[in-house]
Amino acid sequence: MSVLNRRIVLAARPKGAVTPECFRLEEQELSGPEEGQVLVRNHFMSLDPYMRGRMDDARSYAAPQALDHTMQGGTVGVVEQSRNPRFAVGDSVVGMLGWQLYGLSDGRGLQKVDTSRVPLSAYLGVLGMPGATAWYGLHRILEPRPGETLVVSAASGAVGAVVGQLAKAQGCRVVGVAGGAEKCRIVVEEFGFDACVDYKAGALHEHLAQATPRGIDANFENVGGAVLDAVLRRMNGFGRIAICGLIAGYNGEDIALRNTRSILVNRLRVQGFIISEHLDLWPQAHAEIAQAILGGQLRYRETVAEGLESAPEAFVGLLKGHNLGKQLVRLL
Amino acid sequence: MSVLNRRIVLAARPKGAVTPECFRLEEQELSGPEEGQVLVRNHFMSLDPYMRGRMDDARSYAAPQALDHTMQGGTVGVVEQSRNPRFAVGDSVVGMLGWQLYGLSDGRGLQKVDTSRVPLSAYLGVLGMPGATAWYGLHRILEPRPGETLVVSAASGAVGAVVGQLAKAQGCRVVGVAGGAEKCRIVVEEFGFDACVDYKAGALHEHLAQATPRGIDANFENVGGAVLDAVLRRMNGFGRIAICGLIAGYNGEDIALRNTRSILVNRLRVQGFIISEHLDLWPQAHAEIAQAILGGQLRYRETVAEGLESAPEAFVGLLKGHNLGKQLVRLL
Repeated sequence: MSVLNRRIVLAARPKGAVTPECFRLEEQELSGPEEGQVLVRNHFMSLDPYMRGRMDDARSYAAPQALDHTMQGGTVGVVEQSRNPRFAVGDSVVGMLGWQLYGLSDGRGLQKVDTSRVPLSAYLGVLGMPGATAWYGLHRILEPRPGETLVVSAASGAVGAVVGQLAKAQGCRVVGVAGGAEKCRIVVEEFGFDACVDYKAGALHEHLAQATPRGIDANFENVGGAVLDAVLRRMNGFGRIAICGLIAGYNGEDIALRNTRSILVNRLRVQGFIISEHLDLWPQAHAEIAQAILGGQLRYRETVAEGLESAPEAFVGLLKGHNLGKQLVRLL
Repeated sequence: MSVLNRRIVLAARPKGAVTPECFRLEEQELSGPEEGQVLVRNHFMSLDPYMRGRMDDARSYAAPQALDHTMQGGTVGVVEQSRNPRFAVGDSVVGMLGWQLYGLSDGRGLQKVDTSRVPLSAYLGVLGMPGATAWYGLHRILEPRPGETLVVSAASGAVGAVVGQLAKAQGCRVVGVAGGAEKCRIVVEEFGFDACVDYKAGALHEHLAQATPRGIDANFENVGGAVLDAVLRRMNGFGRIAICGLIAGYNGEDIALRNTRSILVNRLRVQGFIISEHLDLWPQAHAEIAQAILGGQLRYRETVAEGLESAPEAFVGLLKGHNLGKQLVRLL
């Protein structure tokens, strides 16, 4: 048996900003599954900033995305055929099957998920990698105490929105940084942040100072660049900064930090992390987040692009901050 | 009873680089001691990079040095008169009596020291604040394991030389960064580092790469700026950077870091610290260092300026890196 698969491969490495020409849509006959394998029909695929880093051929924590191979990435879908005893036809699964309609898997890295109370797509967002990222950075690096002020950049994004809501539940004053008045409105009104600074409105430092009258104790950093520099100027003694992403530099720009002296003067701890190295904590993270969702204390948003062919443009838009919440591509 | 004291006060805050005109030498009659006080004749005073920061009127971890007041700083000397039962005439003491020949103290912050096996001046260097700084940053922040590569900047300085020798005793590959061929020679030949990179020789990144063929696991940073940037490019996964000083920015220059992405990609921990907040560990640090000195495993150098009036020029020289090892001023 075989199916007609459609997939997107990396056609060319970007020179600076990603363009749709970096990608190529292909069709292929997919035969199988072989013994031990399952064939999954992907319903949604995830677009994430980290993918930008892998498109370069640079030394990093993960191997570069190979040219002419299917773009790697997280997916949720349903098992269509199974020759693996762990999976039955109809099982909902989350995995890393990449930018394609169908994926074959030997079951490694594939997990069954329960869609009876949360929709399938949530397993790519709040109950997936972004949710675990938010939880880990907050609870294992920043460890904020009640009454402390926490700032999170890209606050309306898949990670940032969760960070802020979890920190709020911890009793922190939570300030977001986001691009545009509409995003800031949602961050405050929908996600319940105490304040949100629009970095596109200018006077970043002044606005941040107004929003953090007692300084900043903890910063969950997704952006870098001017935002991080402004945060450094407001840090309190013994503050912590979790470096989760530096999207400001994903196109190869240097992210020149000017206020590094704050690290010394304020005895800061600045720590980078990669959530895939802490898989052991994902179950705990997701259990706590699921409870908050079901209890109505945690909200999330999704931005959904329609159809595989929309993925390149949606990805370019993600890197420019066009999304609100988790950026997904619907494949069914 | 009174003595004729001579002291140096801060006459003006520096605009950019420190000049001798920032200081003023004064004479004053010092009467006392009163009940509970001791009068100390200072034999040596310490010049340290941190003093530069306090000369500015900026928010920092310590209050600024007050204008027209005696420059603050560490001193060693001998008790000349005592009306405090804890101290007897002739006791050798270390304290913070400032840039002056005589100091009055109520005993707080004044400690008796044993000069039977190490000279008095050592209590301002290897057995003083710089030694404790080296020990703390190494053992409590960097925690290097045998076989790891450690880089320390300002390697021929009072702190750097101790860091490298302690790390060498831990089984690390130790690479110094220093300014000039002569300093580098001493760092390798006298302090026993595996290599030393002369940052004034150009091609900093290439030379650092040659000296650290397996990358860098731990960095004790005293300088910042271009040196730290070059180090960031060579950091290995899960590396640690202790920010002890950023002398490159002490004149108000921004210390623009370009390679901040390494913090994320390599999951680094970058941590600033101030040794005066860890006084509880000084006895342990000094006991271990004293043992290494007496056992012949740890060497140190001093650069001694003669006479109180030489202090301003010596301090300007310290900030330019003219010293080798601990910079002192002899007052007797």
